[in-house]
Amino acid sequence: MIRLVCEDDQRHGDLVLLNDDQQHYLGRVMRRNKGDSVEIKVAQEVFEGQLTESGTVRLLRPLPAVLPLAADIALYQSLLKQDHFSEVVERATEAGVAEFFPIVTERSQVRSISPNKMQRWTTIAKEATEQCLGAKVPKIHALQTVQAIALPADAVGIMLDPYSPLISEALLVQTVQQTHRIALVVGPEGGLAPSDKEALTSAGFISASLGNHVFRAENAGAFATVTILALLNARGGIRG
Amino acid sequence: MIRLVCEDDQRHGDLVLLNDDQQHYLGRVMRRNKGDSVEIKVAQEVFEGQLTESGTVRLLRPLPAVLPLAADIALYQSLLKQDHFSEVVERATEAGVAEFFPIVTERSQVRSISPNKMQRWTTIAKEATEQCLGAKVPKIHALQTVQAIALPADAVGIMLDPYSPLISEALLVQTVQQTHRIALVVGPEGGLAPSDKEALTSAGFISASLGNHVFRAENAGAFATVTILALLNARGGIRG
Repeated sequence: MIRLVCEDDQRHGDLVLLNDDQQHYLGRVMRRNKGDSVEIKVAQEVFEGQLTESGTVRLLRPLPAVLPLAADIALYQSLLKQDHFSEVVERATEAGVAEFFPIVTERSQVRSISPNKMQRWTTIAKEATEQCLGAKVPKIHALQTVQAIALPADAVGIMLDPYSPLISEALLVQTVQQTHRIALVVGPEGGLAPSDKEALTSAGFISASLGNHVFRAENAGAFATVTILALLNARGGIRG
Repeated sequence: MIRLVCEDDQRHGDLVLLNDDQQHYLGRVMRRNKGDSVEIKVAQEVFEGQLTESGTVRLLRPLPAVLPLAADIALYQSLLKQDHFSEVVERATEAGVAEFFPIVTERSQVRSISPNKMQRWTTIAKEATEQCLGAKVPKIHALQTVQAIALPADAVGIMLDPYSPLISEALLVQTVQQTHRIALVVGPEGGLAPSDKEALTSAGFISASLGNHVFRAENAGAFATVTILALLNARGGIRG
């Protein structure tokens, strides 16, 4: 299904006038023709619409409001080499991360963030949110060390680490605590060091894995996020 | 944790002599020093080892064999524009896909595979398997149309489609059928067309979604794969 996010002033009653980029995207990139269905998000509402002629969509009916995700997941992700942190922001936003906390761990090779980079990540988070029609653009917080991480009292803290129990077991704690906040820590390319794990354990985090495969740092946070949300949904964990 | 895949002739008793690439990777990329732990896979066995000096790892003890994944997932993925199918092969291999079936759907814009591209994907699948220490390199089958897909009798067929029931519900069928084979269909950038869905429904596939977010075609197969494996594992679905 194709969804376009439109500005309020593009809507005129039950017609939406698409801008040049949207027309190009629908016609050339997505190959949609007159009569085809398309979704339109405008002013926090989502509609099913129909392409009437080049440049216009007729709104047919409102679609159900997007449900909140089963949990607010905060991703504490080590800085990565090259531009890999950008990939994390893009994929993990799409996967459903609510906020990002860039961190420095013992083995992090990149240990600072330029203002340009922070600006770029913010843009990527915004675009990825629009792309996946997420409810809210995730905030990217200032850099901190792994030792400085404070686990909020109502959050379940999980650090990803191979050979640990499966994440489904770690989430049993979440059921007991009836919380909808998860703090997820992912290390750099070389993984979390023993000193990192000690600091996190002291702060109340538990270790969990996603199974036998070892994931690259660019994918681990996104893979863990879709997994956690699916496990909570399967358990009827969607909050009312 | 770092894992290196070594050839049989690199092992001499309980010592493994690393090649130049492996030494560079450990020392320069991963910043490991003498005394640090590393995992070595050699001749289908995995060991915990210790870096003794530049270029040598002492094998300390065998590690538990890698468990089979909870299901054999075959990913039927539409061809994608540019080099995006390569990203699918890389990410979905890491996520745990067992085999790939490239397909052409109504809205697929790329409709053929050059021999070069097939060779490249095969290489990517091999490298991604080594990287994540998967048990087996996924095979990439020849191109077919969506109409030609035949669902194996013992497999559960799922097509990813927004606004469908959650994938956890589709997997209830899997429990009933007691199968460990899942056939997963992911469309192109513009999604599956009504004609594609009709053909798949006739072939026995059911529609399922991963929740509210709409995933890009590059990510959808990998995200669905980690989700399916986690849901089956959580349900005690690891096969004996």
